Amino acid sequence: MTTYYGLLSKIMTEISQVLSSVDEDKLGKIIDKILNSKRIFVLGVGRSGLVMKGFAMRLMHLGLNVFVVGESTTPAIGKGDLLIIGSGSGRTPSVVTNVKKAWEYGSAIISITSNKHSPIVEYSDFTIFLLAPTPKVKTGNFNFSIQPMGSLFEQSLLIFADLIVLMLMDKLCMTSDKMFKNHANLE
Amino acid sequence: MTTYYGLLSKIMTEISQVLSSVDEDKLGKIIDKILNSKRIFVLGVGRSGLVMKGFAMRLMHLGLNVFVVGESTTPAIGKGDLLIIGSGSGRTPSVVTNVKKAWEYGSAIISITSNKHSPIVEYSDFTIFLLAPTPKVKTGNFNFSIQPMGSLFEQSLLIFADLIVLMLMDKLCMTSDKMFKNHANLE
Amino acid sequence: MTTYYGLLSKIMTEISQVLSSVDEDKLGKIIDKILNSKRIFVLGVGRSGLVMKGFAMRLMHLGLNVFVVGESTTPAIGKGDLLIIGSGSGRTPSVVTNVKKAWEYGSAIISITSNKHSPIVEYSDFTIFLLAPTPKVKTGNFNFSIQPMGSLFEQSLLIFADLIVLMLMDKLCMTSDKMFKNHANLE
Amino acid sequence: MTTYYGLLSKIMTEISQVLSSVDEDKLGKIIDKILNSKRIFVLGVGRSGLVMKGFAMRLMHLGLNVFVVGESTTPAIGKGDLLIIGSGSGRTPSVVTNVKKAWEYGSAIISITSNKHSPIVEYSDFTIFLLAPTPKVKTGNFNFSIQPMGSLFEQSLLIFADLIVLMLMDKLCMTSDKMFKNHANLE
Repeated sequence: MTTYYGLLSKIMTEISQVLSSVDEDKLGKIIDKILNSKRIFVLGVGRSGLVMKGFAMRLMHLGLNVFVVGESTTPAIGKGDLLIIGSGSGRTPSVVTNVKKAWEYGSAIISITSNKHSPIVEYSDFTIFLLAPTPKVKTGNFNFSIQPMGSLFEQSLLIFADLIVLMLMDKLCMTSDKMFKNHANLE
Repeated sequence: MTTYYGLLSKIMTEISQVLSSVDEDKLGKIIDKILNSKRIFVLGVGRSGLVMKGFAMRLMHLGLNVFVVGESTTPAIGKGDLLIIGSGSGRTPSVVTNVKKAWEYGSAIISITSNKHSPIVEYSDFTIFLLAPTPKVKTGNFNFSIQPMGSLFEQSLLIFADLIVLMLMDKLCMTSDKMFKNHANLE
Repeated sequence: MTTYYGLLSKIMTEISQVLSSVDEDKLGKIIDKILNSKRIFVLGVGRSGLVMKGFAMRLMHLGLNVFVVGESTTPAIGKGDLLIIGSGSGRTPSVVTNVKKAWEYGSAIISITSNKHSPIVEYSDFTIFLLAPTPKVKTGNFNFSIQPMGSLFEQSLLIFADLIVLMLMDKLCMTSDKMFKNHANLE
Repeated sequence: MTTYYGLLSKIMTEISQVLSSVDEDKLGKIIDKILNSKRIFVLGVGRSGLVMKGFAMRLMHLGLNVFVVGESTTPAIGKGDLLIIGSGSGRTPSVVTNVKKAWEYGSAIISITSNKHSPIVEYSDFTIFLLAPTPKVKTGNFNFSIQPMGSLFEQSLLIFADLIVLMLMDKLCMTSDKMFKNHANLE
């Protein structure tokens, strides 16, 4: 069996490669879009969905008005709102259906995917490509990982989302202590 | 095996008995409390928790600002807020802990329970007793059900909560059609 | 405002009407199908989904091998399995998509719906009709409720599912006390 | 504002530092414990809880019998079972309560925490320390992060858990393709 430190080194290298392919120029516009939207909705399925929930939690800590698609008290999306999707393949049927609907309802859309040919790209105001392989799609630039299924995409998605949180903290002059005051105190 | 209609008749009779023990005089004050709170949080564990999530969904449809304890974007509770708990035994440790905390943070509290001796009663501004048996507590008034565990409490809790929704609709002049416009359009 | 007891009486009458339309002859076969399936999957969206989760919890208490579509550890469905759907309209896109897929994967299907014209009916081995109105479909037999959206369907679904639980308890010689031993002891 | 690549470099360095403090010698025993347990339960709250759900999903893909504490069909824990906890502070009241209960019920316990003084350590058969700061506990070795609250712990927890998955794949001779066959085909 490969050693812990051998595997760790490989995983960290893989994540670095994926996150080095991000188009930095889009980030300022994405930050502005997040800050200027009336309400933010996040969407994802499976492990990507779990990462997006964690992202939504941090956006709430920042004082933004945010909802997770599929949770109990999430209202109807509409004009002035923003939908942020994390989906490796960008082809999961329920994700594609929901992106189309959100577009019809007039919401802005940001997608984060590894698939340049995903149907959600054409509906998105901004797309961030995290070029990791997924079980459904082999990407051109980066088509091998020692990790199973979408693990590399999901790890990269978490770190990318948390990096966006740092940029938002900077813009909003928020600190960890201030954010912690918004954190759920019943759990 | 007892027939479908035999069982149906027994279940409906049990629910009617439980819901006939409700103190009607408290309801006006509860409706006012719900409408005058800054934000509403709902709390429950297990099947009671599922019913409370469904109640929260309807409160959102009514245009109220509502959160489910434990969901991703639920913020910290505090003064001016209202916590509504549904708990048959009123003794589940995490429920009791959370009720105490909410009280310390200055939130108002409404509890719905079958247990007159529950520790959450003393922290509650209003308590509604639905006197069904639960697996942890045998209540005085009504200590037998043909149904397992807390089923009778949970059924009664759903119908009671939906009845409160009807009263809120009346006060807010809301219709089913208006509420449906707030319903999640991504799912 | 209508009184508590006035509303209660109307709700109970509505539920009784819906549950009186059930075709009792199918129930024996449904019970057998549940007991003879390798694994059981439950599916629902919104408040119907919450009711189906509560049903799954009771099936687990009965010692059956059961999963909720969308929860973290739910595996792939296939031959020998059974999918049980609760959907008022029977037309929610993700529900229809999943039913078709489950059928293709070789799973048996039981649906509970208020819509006789739902596309899920043709894929189902057995369908139970609970003829309550839903916001998307006005049913023939019973097209009015004082309650908003799908509330009457959801209440009827809960009681119907709990009635099936009673029939399963009888067949399996299970008691509430035995079931409680299977109940989650961490929560 | 610090640039994307500036922040990325800092985050990756922080994660590497945390994961370099892991005691590699324990990992073989942890892998064996996971493989030799009758059933595995995972537990976590907030963002750590989301990571643990993602870990549970991969354990299911590997063909193991795994449950998430708090999901609908999770049964009672007992002798022969294993509880794996991810908790930065190791002091969240519901986590501590559940760990004590699991210990009383005879389950084995593995905890992953950043807090060497956490009360869950004494109940654990094995503890992995990921020495990141958390909002509730400042750890000795590594008490600063540019990231808010427990983000660094949560990122490290995800990568650590995914590394354990690689070790389990090796032991079980599982491939990504085989695992994908177990992946939920309804979603």
